[in-house]
Amino acid sequence: MAILEKTELVLNAAGRMVPEIANGRPQVPYLGVGKYQPRGNKAAPPIRTAADYPESGDKRVADLETALRKCGLRDGMVISSHHHLRDGDRVALMALEAAARMGVKDLMWFPSASFPSQKAAIELMASGVIDHIEGSMNGPLGDYCTQGKMRGMGVLRSHGGRWQAIQDGEVHIDIAVIAAPTADPFGNCDGSHGKSACGSLGFALADSLYADHVIAVTDSLVPFPCIPWQIQGNSVDYVVTVDSIGDPARIVSGTTQVTRSPDRLRIAEFVARFLRDAGIMRNGFSFQAGSGGIALAFVSYLKQMMKDAGVKARFVRGGSTKYLVELLEEGLTDYILDGQTFDLSGVQSIASNPRHVATSPFTSYNYHGKGNFASMVDAVVLGATEVDANFNANVVTHSDGRLLHGIGGWQNCLAAGCTILAVPSFRDRIPVIVDEVTTLCGPAELIDVVVTERGIAINPRRQDLLDAVKGSKLPIHPLQQIKAEVERICGGKPQRPQRADRPVAIVKWVDGSVLDSVWQVV
Amino acid sequence: MAILEKTELVLNAAGRMVPEIANGRPQVPYLGVGKYQPRGNKAAPPIRTAADYPESGDKRVADLETALRKCGLRDGMVISSHHHLRDGDRVALMALEAAARMGVKDLMWFPSASFPSQKAAIELMASGVIDHIEGSMNGPLGDYCTQGKMRGMGVLRSHGGRWQAIQDGEVHIDIAVIAAPTADPFGNCDGSHGKSACGSLGFALADSLYADHVIAVTDSLVPFPCIPWQIQGNSVDYVVTVDSIGDPARIVSGTTQVTRSPDRLRIAEFVARFLRDAGIMRNGFSFQAGSGGIALAFVSYLKQMMKDAGVKARFVRGGSTKYLVELLEEGLTDYILDGQTFDLSGVQSIASNPRHVATSPFTSYNYHGKGNFASMVDAVVLGATEVDANFNANVVTHSDGRLLHGIGGWQNCLAAGCTILAVPSFRDRIPVIVDEVTTLCGPAELIDVVVTERGIAINPRRQDLLDAVKGSKLPIHPLQQIKAEVERICGGKPQRPQRADRPVAIVKWVDGSVLDSVWQVV
Repeated sequence: MAILEKTELVLNAAGRMVPEIANGRPQVPYLGVGKYQPRGNKAAPPIRTAADYPESGDKRVADLETALRKCGLRDGMVISSHHHLRDGDRVALMALEAAARMGVKDLMWFPSASFPSQKAAIELMASGVIDHIEGSMNGPLGDYCTQGKMRGMGVLRSHGGRWQAIQDGEVHIDIAVIAAPTADPFGNCDGSHGKSACGSLGFALADSLYADHVIAVTDSLVPFPCIPWQIQGNSVDYVVTVDSIGDPARIVSGTTQVTRSPDRLRIAEFVARFLRDAGIMRNGFSFQAGSGGIALAFVSYLKQMMKDAGVKARFVRGGSTKYLVELLEEGLTDYILDGQTFDLSGVQSIASNPRHVATSPFTSYNYHGKGNFASMVDAVVLGATEVDANFNANVVTHSDGRLLHGIGGWQNCLAAGCTILAVPSFRDRIPVIVDEVTTLCGPAELIDVVVTERGIAINPRRQDLLDAVKGSKLPIHPLQQIKAEVERICGGKPQRPQRADRPVAIVKWVDGSVLDSVWQVV
Repeated sequence: MAILEKTELVLNAAGRMVPEIANGRPQVPYLGVGKYQPRGNKAAPPIRTAADYPESGDKRVADLETALRKCGLRDGMVISSHHHLRDGDRVALMALEAAARMGVKDLMWFPSASFPSQKAAIELMASGVIDHIEGSMNGPLGDYCTQGKMRGMGVLRSHGGRWQAIQDGEVHIDIAVIAAPTADPFGNCDGSHGKSACGSLGFALADSLYADHVIAVTDSLVPFPCIPWQIQGNSVDYVVTVDSIGDPARIVSGTTQVTRSPDRLRIAEFVARFLRDAGIMRNGFSFQAGSGGIALAFVSYLKQMMKDAGVKARFVRGGSTKYLVELLEEGLTDYILDGQTFDLSGVQSIASNPRHVATSPFTSYNYHGKGNFASMVDAVVLGATEVDANFNANVVTHSDGRLLHGIGGWQNCLAAGCTILAVPSFRDRIPVIVDEVTTLCGPAELIDVVVTERGIAINPRRQDLLDAVKGSKLPIHPLQQIKAEVERICGGKPQRPQRADRPVAIVKWVDGSVLDSVWQVV
């Protein structure tokens, strides 16, 4: 890819300027929620034959370089990796650095997410080994991107959008490298056991099914069969054993911590009370909340309210934590449907409790499937970096324009019956409620409630919710009013970022269309 | 398809005459084991969008006719079904009869296997609703085929070959109809629970992934999520509830019975002793045996020998029965890897024991994958209708030429480290060891041992096995010698079938090439 690819910008249905071409590939500008009708057929991986694989099932090779060479690694290929090991992952860099030693250039790195501990990838971008990253960029890699230093254009996708892009053939993965906390010589992989256990491996499933070549890398080899086999050896070409796939301390936290901030506790309590008073918290209901401090506190409040009301959930969606595990173990939910596992309690539970079930972006989030779980969840509690007075929201950039976060499952979760953004009204004296979001990640029509420490705003499109809480003691206010109050406190609106007229990344919508651009910061 | 399709016959690498074209589709004549190199890419189903499916996840429609109409049922389509409910299945006929009422013609019925209780399909063939069957035909349907009455040509595939054919795009399924002992409104399906519980649903997995349209039919609807979800609702278009998907008495047997015949017990004991004396029965070994009386007796003998020797298996492959379940529960194997579940003990075990693991033809048998489990099994014990003195074997036709059995996983299992045919040397005074098999299903080079009540014959290609049992007390004899002895007892060789020069079915090899023809019987 050329540095500073020239491309025309067009106005999409959300009123955002987006490039027509990214990394040489024509793009569909966002058309509106549910408006883009996909055509054609799914990606079709090459047909293999068992005659080309060892009859013994032993696919081990000496090291990653050998595996990459056998996979035919060459310039310009797409290498994928996964973030199950989060900031503790060692495998992605191991593979990219092996590729660097082998002298290849212009790779596209396609992680499900990248983390600060992988900032050495910046050197690989500077030296031309990596052309660009398509995937969530948390921290320094995103910052590097918004500094305009990445050769190709960043492409940000939700977890479901990543599956959709692979499935639909928008991204063709040449070589998938899967970090496996346990694997057998045939390539069956499990994430719940082993010294680097991380829980579910669902993010790697699409790659295992659609990539031309798949390498499993493990530090805990077991004899065939590795059970459970969330990744099936029948999709794997080579198995590499290494001393360590990651730093256990950063793979899962020992425990995830509830917030101690009074303001954030207040937000969490508002969210729980809203679910209760709006009648969403009822027998057989379902919800999803993340692993942030507000979300955890929300689960604690809700749990007590469920107990008080004698209400039981049918399922809760992970990111699992000990708080969700407690709900399961205390009989307050029938199931945890888990996309990723955030703490040790979650890992232990998913390894042993058949009601704690690993999911994948296919089941949970893929918009180009025959439906998915996201729209069946009654309520989801999410964060945001910014939200505008019309309920449009941002989750990837800060108000200074820097790209510091990935989308994760955030966009996919907006399909829930009731989408709640639980956000402080300002951070570091910068208002979170803004005139216009720096980057549009979530269209207003899908965001139903914004809960701040200063009150709860319900999207006027949701008259049903407004009616449901009429007469309750909840502090329901127009979002515009909360915004004005915050601006008074903070001494005005946030400064608009200084930016060049050059898009450095695009934000995909769940259907693969381009929702917004991320601009170079100057 | 025209009746009596004219096609040229060619001689394949096994020396069998096979049609160049079947049901309008050019065929690859068998080239030898591991010789056919597939090219191209897998089948690519249409891309769908969640926008076209209910946000609530509720995909229920009133009845099968409604579902078939919504799937766009029309003349000439391919309708698939599965044999998890075995001779108790009601769903396949329900769908085909609904199609008949809707007035469509010339369907191709693509069951994973068909059973005697489905013989009403003969009327649907006579009336032109069904053109032909591609799939195992047990009993009357196979008989109808060899009578030359089916319009199109029968195509017999192994379980792995069926996956391969779907995956490689040789068979395009328009509508898959999946009988689900439990399902939720989203279409997640489980076979282990519900009043019609049958165990694993693995045979339907390929259909769910590759068919254009998928209908789940259940008599036990549970709220989302149906756990486990061997078939995922994300692959399902419509859900239909019916009073009964099958006759429980014929879905699983209460218990499967060990043979009481002294000759067959002798065969079973020889097989077990062979595994022990050849050193195959050792710590960490694996084996597969079916549900026939000899196989069950073999497991009983082997179990005692394992206990006596203090040997534990790493895994055993089902078809599971109470005999395998006992091995698991007594700690004599780490895992059961189960392709189908034959009795109630098996169903209860797979529903509750995490070490009793459901597999699919993809993991177990698909030859066009990156290897599969079959070649990793140390020993497999199979039956046969005929075997020739060179170790070629038949499993689908009798010596009178009638097609009465399907291939099942038989061909796939031949990849095991040691393939043993455990057969009586004659049945109804007709020798089982013949000059030439009526239909070639298994090439001699893959069949290692033939065990009869009159002794054990080892394929001369397996000098290692001959060496391994040298000096043992086992009655090892040349197969030719056993054959001669049986011919003396039976008063000669079996009569050759009277057949027309018209192929009515073809037998596929595991790679999709044509191994042999089945001829019309006159």
